[in-house]
Amino acid sequence: MNEVIELLLNHRSVRRFKDITLSEEQTEAIISAAQAASTSSNVQAYTIIGVTDPGKRQVLAGLAGNQSYVEHTGLFLVFCADLSRLKEATEQQGETFHQNTESFVVATVDAALAAQNAAIAAESLGLGICYIGGIRNKPQEVSELLELPELVYPVFGLTIGVPDQENALRPRLPQHTVYHENSYKREQSRQGVAEYDEAMERYYKERTQGRTITNWSKGIADKYRQPGRAHLRPFLENRGFRLE
Amino acid sequence: MNEVIELLLNHRSVRRFKDITLSEEQTEAIISAAQAASTSSNVQAYTIIGVTDPGKRQVLAGLAGNQSYVEHTGLFLVFCADLSRLKEATEQQGETFHQNTESFVVATVDAALAAQNAAIAAESLGLGICYIGGIRNKPQEVSELLELPELVYPVFGLTIGVPDQENALRPRLPQHTVYHENSYKREQSRQGVAEYDEAMERYYKERTQGRTITNWSKGIADKYRQPGRAHLRPFLENRGFRLE
Repeated sequence: MNEVIELLLNHRSVRRFKDITLSEEQTEAIISAAQAASTSSNVQAYTIIGVTDPGKRQVLAGLAGNQSYVEHTGLFLVFCADLSRLKEATEQQGETFHQNTESFVVATVDAALAAQNAAIAAESLGLGICYIGGIRNKPQEVSELLELPELVYPVFGLTIGVPDQENALRPRLPQHTVYHENSYKREQSRQGVAEYDEAMERYYKERTQGRTITNWSKGIADKYRQPGRAHLRPFLENRGFRLE
Repeated sequence: MNEVIELLLNHRSVRRFKDITLSEEQTEAIISAAQAASTSSNVQAYTIIGVTDPGKRQVLAGLAGNQSYVEHTGLFLVFCADLSRLKEATEQQGETFHQNTESFVVATVDAALAAQNAAIAAESLGLGICYIGGIRNKPQEVSELLELPELVYPVFGLTIGVPDQENALRPRLPQHTVYHENSYKREQSRQGVAEYDEAMERYYKERTQGRTITNWSKGIADKYRQPGRAHLRPFLENRGFRLE
């Protein structure tokens, strides 16, 4: 164990921040760290929009489902998967640009790797972070607000700021549930989920003085018994992505 | 600047490792770090297969395009996006599981965030890493080898080990190319690419004693003038993913 791993293990999402804007030095260090992440064949298929404008932040907070910590935070970043830069580079060389599900995955993963580096850099500076998947609630409106061109889509937001709360660590699935040696072990995974359900039931009970009786599986069922964000596929097509 | 950010900025991919297997403690710390990454609504929609079996590693190295550093390394991890655990949990509660492009993105991003934490934990232990997108060359064969169930797909591999080479840092796009304030700045991005093309032409020339005359845009055009891994979409459908 070392200090870096301790920092990683100590992660918890922060959802209330002091109204302190990040310094230029902090922002630059965080974005530099994002850029240093691995990228598939060096394509760097992402763009980060740093939203500092208070009006835009307020609109984004509403679009993301009234999450006030999008508005009241030190910096709000929108991580976009970006094939438009690759298309321009290809066409500039007189070639036709080809895209498909593979390039969609590459760009989405590139954005995520960069974001996780940004998150860790921020936390190493004593700041708190929270990923905001809620910007996919209204991706068309977010894209218009940020003037995203075709072949660019907002994957998630990342809110970064000086924490104004202390959260408890949320337990994760037991390690043997998500880590398997040499082949996928279905029984091992099932046992892990059963153990976790018990642990999470206790966790929720304790945190709500017995008012909330639920567990992980129940929460998952509640989420996936109806389709979530069914607009995403037509939105992506509308932005020029071909998921072929 | 602090030590964590320095570690992040100091990243370079390693493609030659000593034949030293990771200790159990190292593996456990790396996987714990992966698990501590943010996950969308705590769904933890990924599974990591740690490939320690030398025979399987050899087959994987071949499938990934004869990358010997998949075989000769300290540990080889395959990060899988996993909706199967969520489907089981949902059905166990007597509900019908719904999936679409949104859940595909969630699982892919969850796998990537976990992987980047694993990569950083490994580097903090003095180990080197390289992402292996090449496992998407033959995803069906990889899935069979690792006995992945339906609704699980291998997003990429991560090879981790004691470095047996020292690589130079590869320059990234200028920061203003990938980081824009408040809205997408197309001209700013184009200027950045032009600067980067010049820098990369010098970089390749110097590294090859003048033999390689290319730049970033030319490399991108070369890659995207034909469709890459066009099998990915039918493969995903075959594994039960609905990209609707």
